[in-house]
Amino acid sequence: MNTDHIHLSIDQIYELSFDVLTHNGFSAAHAAAIAKTITAGQRDDCQSHGLYRLLVCVRTLKTGLVDAAALPLITHPTPAVVQVDAQRAYSLLAFQEGLPHLVEKAKSNGVAVLAINNCFHFSALWPEVEAIAQHGLAGLAMTPSHSWVAPAGGTRPVFGTNPFAFAWPRPGGYPYVFDFATSMVARGEIELHRRSGRAIPEGWAIDRDGRPTTDAAAGLDGAMLTFGSYKGSALSTMIELLAGPLIGDWTSLQSQAFDNGAGGTPLHGELVIALDPDILGRGQRAINASSAEAMLDAISGQGARLPSERRFKARAVSEREGVWVGRALYDDVMALSTPSSSRRT
Amino acid sequence: MNTDHIHLSIDQIYELSFDVLTHNGFSAAHAAAIAKTITAGQRDDCQSHGLYRLLVCVRTLKTGLVDAAALPLITHPTPAVVQVDAQRAYSLLAFQEGLPHLVEKAKSNGVAVLAINNCFHFSALWPEVEAIAQHGLAGLAMTPSHSWVAPAGGTRPVFGTNPFAFAWPRPGGYPYVFDFATSMVARGEIELHRRSGRAIPEGWAIDRDGRPTTDAAAGLDGAMLTFGSYKGSALSTMIELLAGPLIGDWTSLQSQAFDNGAGGTPLHGELVIALDPDILGRGQRAINASSAEAMLDAISGQGARLPSERRFKARAVSEREGVWVGRALYDDVMALSTPSSSRRT
Repeated sequence: MNTDHIHLSIDQIYELSFDVLTHNGFSAAHAAAIAKTITAGQRDDCQSHGLYRLLVCVRTLKTGLVDAAALPLITHPTPAVVQVDAQRAYSLLAFQEGLPHLVEKAKSNGVAVLAINNCFHFSALWPEVEAIAQHGLAGLAMTPSHSWVAPAGGTRPVFGTNPFAFAWPRPGGYPYVFDFATSMVARGEIELHRRSGRAIPEGWAIDRDGRPTTDAAAGLDGAMLTFGSYKGSALSTMIELLAGPLIGDWTSLQSQAFDNGAGGTPLHGELVIALDPDILGRGQRAINASSAEAMLDAISGQGARLPSERRFKARAVSEREGVWVGRALYDDVMALSTPSSSRRT
Repeated sequence: MNTDHIHLSIDQIYELSFDVLTHNGFSAAHAAAIAKTITAGQRDDCQSHGLYRLLVCVRTLKTGLVDAAALPLITHPTPAVVQVDAQRAYSLLAFQEGLPHLVEKAKSNGVAVLAINNCFHFSALWPEVEAIAQHGLAGLAMTPSHSWVAPAGGTRPVFGTNPFAFAWPRPGGYPYVFDFATSMVARGEIELHRRSGRAIPEGWAIDRDGRPTTDAAAGLDGAMLTFGSYKGSALSTMIELLAGPLIGDWTSLQSQAFDNGAGGTPLHGELVIALDPDILGRGQRAINASSAEAMLDAISGQGARLPSERRFKARAVSEREGVWVGRALYDDVMALSTPSSSRRT
């Protein structure tokens, strides 16, 4: 018995999320796409991408910048490209609407691109690359964010935390998936240290004057650092270019300039690439799958962790037993909720 | 006046390389493709990818594994994919023959893939992504190698040094280019430390028992480490999958198994992706280019180095003044050369 926590099924998480979002002004289509992703985050025990995000979404909507109902505008520049203008709504409905086209185009051409433009973006990329892998395709996704991160050798922010995600379909199980920020850590991690008054490790950030700092507030005020020194910095530059100017969208500097100090959600583009092993694999599907499995088994077989393993374990538990949500968070969410959704849970 | 060095023009480097390669058994087509890349390496002051490579190429050819004359077999699985079977020759002619198709397909479809299979691979990837950028396209390239590198959290080698390269076309100048190993350093770097009896820094390698080591020989005998901890490890896994099983080719473990201790050049595949900013950029070519330039200028404007800057500086000098080659290396190369090429230089 757990009185500090509320027990919810995965379906209840979804319903609660959907109701809170529609009650607070999101169209049903947007609410469904957002609720689906929030449910996946809560299910996989990614607390910062779970129910907590409802509070952020509703608060952000009140700033008046995010469009809560705009329909994604889909165009087809070529047989291998689908471009979706999110029209300043959140990215998730745009991805959802673009995905079937991306899959169909990748399966016809061997490779295809989904470019999402003009979207506010708050969500992790793993649900998206996982959705691509569910169709038997390899998927890559990347976005800029706000310019918080200094290039290697520099002192002033240029890059976003620029996440990069990848998924590979595995026979009869979860895909191989990673999704990481190209900053040393997520910005929220430094924010948590600041709130709790803890020092941050060296290497996470520099202060306003470009000096290494262990003070979280000074780091937030200065610049975050990339992972992997100049290689991580190069990767982050690539993401700025590919998910920005390549697809006719903004860099993190431009997203930050638009935000103009308001501290809002980044507004930018997203690049998604899908690749079809059946077309590219020279007709040896079984051999290729077994080469891939042998390599992945050589990693996990020596006790090294595959990325996302923790999430998949949490998912299996949640699917079997439901999810426990902290009462404080639950109460905050319920305060945004309709009478009907509070009855339902 | 420099008596320890020989002065050569860039054309002379090419002619010397071409003559050495044909004299030692490479077909004219392969010799031309290899000589072009070796010349670019020497020109850009990448000593390990310059004339020195002639010695390695000739020595490797004598093992009898590399085909010195096989013509690349080009197929077109879809309008967005070109697949080139190198037929166990070096990769460079396959790339050269595949490139015009890749460019044409990317310019028709917005995105295209060049998959090279069954190639021995010794060369850096930057000449290839630079060649893509010269056509106004963004280019990515990646390959596995031999399994020398342990996954993060592991102790035994699985990955190759798995290089990842990217180029972005810049108006009126050199492109933005990076090309890095996903191992902490190149294997040759540890080899150099071993030869000179110097310790390697911690973080480069672990010994046979998985313990951190600063002994270069113990590191070569154990496993190299990836850059950027588990993120670099994830990236290296992606490269294994995309440039291996995705395109019907080998992982680094499989290349290593085929080598069977001979210490030869890796045999595997290569994945190259080209993306067209004109098709993907929503018709705002000038705006996009200026967003990209503003971001890149924000990096170099604060004194942070862009990758490849050192190479481009060396290139400008070489194009103006030619190249100085150490006499010992020159003599080693000349010993493999024909009378006609020694007259020419």
